[in-house]
Amino acid sequence: MMEKTVKVVYHVNTDVNTVPAILNNVRNHLNADPKAKIVVVTHGPGINFLIQDAKDSQGREFSGSVSELAGRGVEFRVCNNTLTSRNIDPGTLLMEAKIVPSGVAEVARLQALEGYVYLKP
Amino acid sequence: MMEKTVKVVYHVNTDVNTVPAILNNVRNHLNADPKAKIVVVTHGPGINFLIQDAKDSQGREFSGSVSELAGRGVEFRVCNNTLTSRNIDPGTLLMEAKIVPSGVAEVARLQALEGYVYLKP
Amino acid sequence: MMEKTVKVVYHVNTDVNTVPAILNNVRNHLNADPKAKIVVVTHGPGINFLIQDAKDSQGREFSGSVSELAGRGVEFRVCNNTLTSRNIDPGTLLMEAKIVPSGVAEVARLQALEGYVYLKP
Repeated sequence: MMEKTVKVVYHVNTDVNTVPAILNNVRNHLNADPKAKIVVVTHGPGINFLIQDAKDSQGREFSGSVSELAGRGVEFRVCNNTLTSRNIDPGTLLMEAKIVPSGVAEVARLQALEGYVYLKP
Repeated sequence: MMEKTVKVVYHVNTDVNTVPAILNNVRNHLNADPKAKIVVVTHGPGINFLIQDAKDSQGREFSGSVSELAGRGVEFRVCNNTLTSRNIDPGTLLMEAKIVPSGVAEVARLQALEGYVYLKP
Repeated sequence: MMEKTVKVVYHVNTDVNTVPAILNNVRNHLNADPKAKIVVVTHGPGINFLIQDAKDSQGREFSGSVSELAGRGVEFRVCNNTLTSRNIDPGTLLMEAKIVPSGVAEVARLQALEGYVYLKP
């Protein structure tokens, strides 16, 4: 039997304090469905964990988790409108982060044109 | 090439303090994808910015932004259950607001029957 | 005329203080669309209202509302990863709660493979 690959966009616009639980959700998701294709789209405060040296409330960096999940096929996308409005240098992002013109438009595009389903963690 | 129009329901059930960022999301969305069809469905505290004279934390009215976005094709819908349970006179709503019987049922209906994708800002 | 049944996953990962409003959303949804099929998928703090004797901030138990909604066809699903990580005995759950391996994977699966639309209350 061919099983359809489940494609999921995780929509993240909340700050670093919410991110350890979100990355744990992604990890659990992949453990339950290793073939799932997960794209994490970030904008607003949601991009903060993808800036180099960002740390959670316990002082742990996110780069290790991001790198581990990227190694399992997870993609991380960052809203260029957020970068521009906050004057953030794209060079300060983790190398796994890919910039898209608009986070919200990307969340909609993935669903409408690429068959993704939605999840707001 | 024919491009599919992306139709998106923005689901808003949070109070006025969250709305300036949400309306900014809608604006950025339309700038990135001018042909997107956006319907903002509100219920609970989410309807508050659509009441006349509602203001954000900095004392700015929402009517200007709502009018501007409506001019770009955005629709605003308000849950009648919320109006009823809170005894709000429909006559106090901004003229751009259209009443629907149930906000949550409308959010589901737009997706299931009209091809909208979902976004919770 | 045959009308398509609307199938909706309510995604709940917030604590008991948010649940009275959420269950009210579900109730209003069914009142507006009595044939809607609603599945409430819970994980993280979202499972708490499905533990026996859980109470809201006013000391009311959830079991009555859960039982009433189950009687109207609503299903309640609980994430096993959450049970395991928090050492919660499945025997302490309300009898209406059904365990699934992963809450987030279930939210995605219902959309991608069973035609559900999404709602984050």
